Amino acid sequence: MSQLRKDPIVGRWTIIATERARRPAAFVDPQAIITDKKSCTYCQEPLKIIDEHEGVKVIHSSNPLLDQVHPFERKAHGIYDVCYSYGHHEVIVEVADHIAGMADLSIGQIKAVFEAYAARMEMHRKDHAIEYILAYKNYGVAAGSRNIGHSRSQIMAVPVVPMRVKDKISGAKKYFDYHDRCLFCDLVSQELENKQRIVAQNDHFIAITPFASRFPFETWILPKKHHSDFVTGIEGSATDLAVIMKDLLLRFKIGLNDPAYNYMIQNAPVKHPILYKENYHWHIEVMPRLTRVAGFERGTGFYICPIPPEMAAEFLREVEIHA
Amino acid sequence: MSQLRKDPIVGRWTIIATERARRPAAFVDPQAIITDKKSCTYCQEPLKIIDEHEGVKVIHSSNPLLDQVHPFERKAHGIYDVCYSYGHHEVIVEVADHIAGMADLSIGQIKAVFEAYAARMEMHRKDHAIEYILAYKNYGVAAGSRNIGHSRSQIMAVPVVPMRVKDKISGAKKYFDYHDRCLFCDLVSQELENKQRIVAQNDHFIAITPFASRFPFETWILPKKHHSDFVTGIEGSATDLAVIMKDLLLRFKIGLNDPAYNYMIQNAPVKHPILYKENYHWHIEVMPRLTRVAGFERGTGFYICPIPPEMAAEFLREVEIHA
Repeated sequence: MSQLRKDPIVGRWTIIATERARRPAAFVDPQAIITDKKSCTYCQEPLKIIDEHEGVKVIHSSNPLLDQVHPFERKAHGIYDVCYSYGHHEVIVEVADHIAGMADLSIGQIKAVFEAYAARMEMHRKDHAIEYILAYKNYGVAAGSRNIGHSRSQIMAVPVVPMRVKDKISGAKKYFDYHDRCLFCDLVSQELENKQRIVAQNDHFIAITPFASRFPFETWILPKKHHSDFVTGIEGSATDLAVIMKDLLLRFKIGLNDPAYNYMIQNAPVKHPILYKENYHWHIEVMPRLTRVAGFERGTGFYICPIPPEMAAEFLREVEIHA
Repeated sequence: MSQLRKDPIVGRWTIIATERARRPAAFVDPQAIITDKKSCTYCQEPLKIIDEHEGVKVIHSSNPLLDQVHPFERKAHGIYDVCYSYGHHEVIVEVADHIAGMADLSIGQIKAVFEAYAARMEMHRKDHAIEYILAYKNYGVAAGSRNIGHSRSQIMAVPVVPMRVKDKISGAKKYFDYHDRCLFCDLVSQELENKQRIVAQNDHFIAITPFASRFPFETWILPKKHHSDFVTGIEGSATDLAVIMKDLLLRFKIGLNDPAYNYMIQNAPVKHPILYKENYHWHIEVMPRLTRVAGFERGTGFYICPIPPEMAAEFLREVEIHA
């Protein structure tokens, strides 16, 4: 099975594929596979369904990067840290029909996808080895998907708190310690007042292009009301979340020529939720993949965004999404 | 001019292009420009040379993201930090001839490129506003270069210490505080002993695929002897550095079908070098761009590497680079 290895310098974890590693030659000019209904695994093969929620099917990844064969146990390897890649890796098949993009699902179908994430998160939280659960989507080749055709997303439940999650938690906590207010709540207030970076909003959610956007048309969806946890946070507001997500994805599809994109549910770590209740505020990062990250970004973690987020928001707001 | 904006959550900086921003429509299906000698800016136009070193020419970026028009001054914008994008942004035109890749330059030419980086770094250090200087290369479309044909690299001198640099410094310092030894020196020793991840070596340098590689065929070049600073560190060893870099880039070119790649000189921050003298060890990260970063990596900073670094190193070692 795969290994989890930790970079000794910055503490970043990598899942290293070992047994099922791609051979070196497989990296030379890999091709994307675009499937039609007849060649689609999710349409033709009998799926081994592990959970189902209003038409959304949850299956094990066919190429799992994490499993439960060996327990998680950190070991030294000289100066390095290594362990078995314990965890859960699932695919969320969002719809029975062969529809490629979430933008083309109904509000009800998108709502069911978010509810399926919440149900799986609730499930994996019961596994005491799990520290973090990420639900995310890769849409299109540039977003890291190599098999295109049937709308789906993924869930990874891992036994460590990833570095970038720690950075978010730590930043939000510093702000809360100083102000006694949630950083994200203040951000939402300021964006509602300023208006320039708002892409869409409804009763429960706001979609904004962040002030220090890393990528052109990067958009965050935040609940207007404070809530640290996605799972309980979407109770009663899942329809509004589906509405704003469909709205945003249609703006991307129509305005930016159906770009590749990723989205990631940014939730608090699993353990000790009381630590995050006041100072963390769940949200979703959505990122079209229109540019390439170059050496400067890779070398410093300092990004270059070739369009101001105010201009990106204005452009997205003006896309005509109703026929 | 551009702005520097800081993400209020994790403290990451972004350069936001404002005046010269690309219009939204320009993000739809952008094309790479592949130049021949006749259409090459670096061959045909009279270059405004600001520094020259054995055939290597330093010019201002034609599309500078940083300049010296306004002083660096952090300002609040509600909860956000914003400032003018003060700094230096230069292009290193590596060779007079229209040669696309550094792999095809001579050892002497590559040596001159590294010496030119050192000379420019020494120059920019005299600017008291500068906190960090990155020399880096984007080769090929997938590496973020859109104008292909004439071998060049870039220098950015910025007025803040970037987040990822802080992470490295902090990790190396924790190790030094505990062991009273340099983390990178111990890493070099362990890799020399283990041998599995060595791609190449000579008297002064070792090239290894890191234990927790983020990307397939990611390779780091480290000086075998401790040195915290690239500028003074390459004195007397620049030829060996050129030899190992050319060796590595030829292995990429021949073994991986001339892939896009980035490299970044990972040096210590500019100010208070005494703080880094014992615990930091300069090095170069070199990364072929063969896969796409997907949602999981973006959402967590936790990477998935589809080939073990031991297999990648073995593959690169076995590439026949001498005709």
